[in-house]
Amino acid sequence: MTHLPLQIAGIGHYLPQQQISSSDLATRLELTDDWIAAKTGVHTRHYANLAQGETTVGMGVAAAHMALNHAGIRADQLDVIVAAATGAEQLIPCTAVLLQHALGAPEGQSICFDVNATCMSFLVGLHLVAAQVAAGVYQTALIVASEIASTSLNPHEPESAALFGDAAAAVVLRRTPTGSASAICHTRFATYSSGSAYIVGLGGGTRHHPNDPATTPEMNMFHMEGPRAYLQVFRTLPPFLDTFFAEAGWQREDLAAVVPHQASQHGLDLLTQRLGFRVEQVVSNLATRGNTVAASIPLALSEAVHAGRIRRGDRLALIGAGAGLTLGAMALVY
Amino acid sequence: MTHLPLQIAGIGHYLPQQQISSSDLATRLELTDDWIAAKTGVHTRHYANLAQGETTVGMGVAAAHMALNHAGIRADQLDVIVAAATGAEQLIPCTAVLLQHALGAPEGQSICFDVNATCMSFLVGLHLVAAQVAAGVYQTALIVASEIASTSLNPHEPESAALFGDAAAAVVLRRTPTGSASAICHTRFATYSSGSAYIVGLGGGTRHHPNDPATTPEMNMFHMEGPRAYLQVFRTLPPFLDTFFAEAGWQREDLAAVVPHQASQHGLDLLTQRLGFRVEQVVSNLATRGNTVAASIPLALSEAVHAGRIRRGDRLALIGAGAGLTLGAMALVY
Repeated sequence: MTHLPLQIAGIGHYLPQQQISSSDLATRLELTDDWIAAKTGVHTRHYANLAQGETTVGMGVAAAHMALNHAGIRADQLDVIVAAATGAEQLIPCTAVLLQHALGAPEGQSICFDVNATCMSFLVGLHLVAAQVAAGVYQTALIVASEIASTSLNPHEPESAALFGDAAAAVVLRRTPTGSASAICHTRFATYSSGSAYIVGLGGGTRHHPNDPATTPEMNMFHMEGPRAYLQVFRTLPPFLDTFFAEAGWQREDLAAVVPHQASQHGLDLLTQRLGFRVEQVVSNLATRGNTVAASIPLALSEAVHAGRIRRGDRLALIGAGAGLTLGAMALVY
Repeated sequence: MTHLPLQIAGIGHYLPQQQISSSDLATRLELTDDWIAAKTGVHTRHYANLAQGETTVGMGVAAAHMALNHAGIRADQLDVIVAAATGAEQLIPCTAVLLQHALGAPEGQSICFDVNATCMSFLVGLHLVAAQVAAGVYQTALIVASEIASTSLNPHEPESAALFGDAAAAVVLRRTPTGSASAICHTRFATYSSGSAYIVGLGGGTRHHPNDPATTPEMNMFHMEGPRAYLQVFRTLPPFLDTFFAEAGWQREDLAAVVPHQASQHGLDLLTQRLGFRVEQVVSNLATRGNTVAASIPLALSEAVHAGRIRRGDRLALIGAGAGLTLGAMALVY
């Protein structure tokens, strides 16, 4: 247990204008609505329109503005800006630098860097920055998870093509003000790299350079061996969570809400069928958002906070599993 | 000043077999040796041969083995593995996961993630992990900076095409053992995003997807407006370093060595001509390695340590400027 007196002072999100229903997608992918619903649990998802400014940075800035407004913090108060996501805007410079610029945050006053742990990027970014803010190195951190998965989906892999959506979410992290119980109480991560070939994007890096004639379009698309990935989570997540709760000194029934990564309906069902949570504890927006990669957890948290479902003082667990396989869990008092 | 009782317990590096002299390159780029020497200060650099295993991960593993051997640490003792670089092996999963797998580090025992702050990635990764190890969250961290720039160079931009080389370097970070003076004494970063268009790789992300027909080969290559980037460093680095040394409570003359990012000969000359360091303090391998992006600082440090130039107890400053523009400086007792 590593109690840090920190507070998510503000949280926000952005969803692209364009909504793609499963019936739209069924036509494109030559499937039926029912097949998509049964395989993914997703009924509609949002796809970014880059030409209308819904870029990784554009969506991230919109989410950041909402988080800053919610916190009552101005961009010129930020001393750390983190882009925590699988996908970057471009190779160089890192996305966080472009966020500083687009937010109009004064240059020279903040450090900007990107963190990537695939779907767990937001949790890892929050974990890394939390230690720095707790130590007093920085005062006010912005962590932005903005993901555009839609342009990397493979229509010949309908299960993953129907699962993902685009979104951005952001939080402002500060020390807990006097009189508030907010805290990050415990965090645990573990990577199981025997699963590193189950969920892949082979391109987009040095191994299969975009300009290499041997790089195929399929390499630049997402590939998921869903059943194998699910089986690995099924085996590793229960003991991981038992250890996490024992270390945190928390009981599952203490939680006002569990905010999981919206991996898939099968993944969410694990929480109630095998991991000991009650249905009413589990926050889910999978049906209308899809799996939004690293934006998934902070998006679900932001929607629950702004809907009044999660309130100051609530005990929460943020839980997820992402490509790697990397498991992550954070216990916090909102 | 944020004194952390941490030690670089081991350090290592890997250089690709293939050396490219400036006369080789002069022929390819239709230039002269003299032009290359005058513009870059680089006489020879190493280029990775991916087909022979010199991939981002392959080179990173070689550097990591050297660092682990130097530290007397086994891969099964690692509880954090960080890939700190501009370039990833592939889009998904992150490079650190692939390093866990390739190192044979037992899965489930370490957390793996990537950090990207372009040329400052290694310093930022070390900074982030240091806070966690100092707080006792993790015990033994491996930070790997492995960079393959050669495949993204644009032959029509000879100044940058002649400047860069490929390399990997790695460190093992642990708490300082009793009786040693080793410490990370102070760290400072600042991002100046008005320079975000001076050093770019526009492709490789969501903005210009590799499969988008509008993405050109040039977008997937490195582009640098050298004089503008240099001018921004020239203006921002002196006051940044003055603040850094004042915060650290150190004098420039106290340093046994300054290990700078090997940005270019003009960049290195700033250190002695404008920033107050003596020529004999400055570690440089630019002439034979080129600018190896995020691997540059740990590579220069590793070569200096293994050559006996830097010894336990020496006061060092690691200093650099990278695309962003992001400035970074770390004061440590090796």
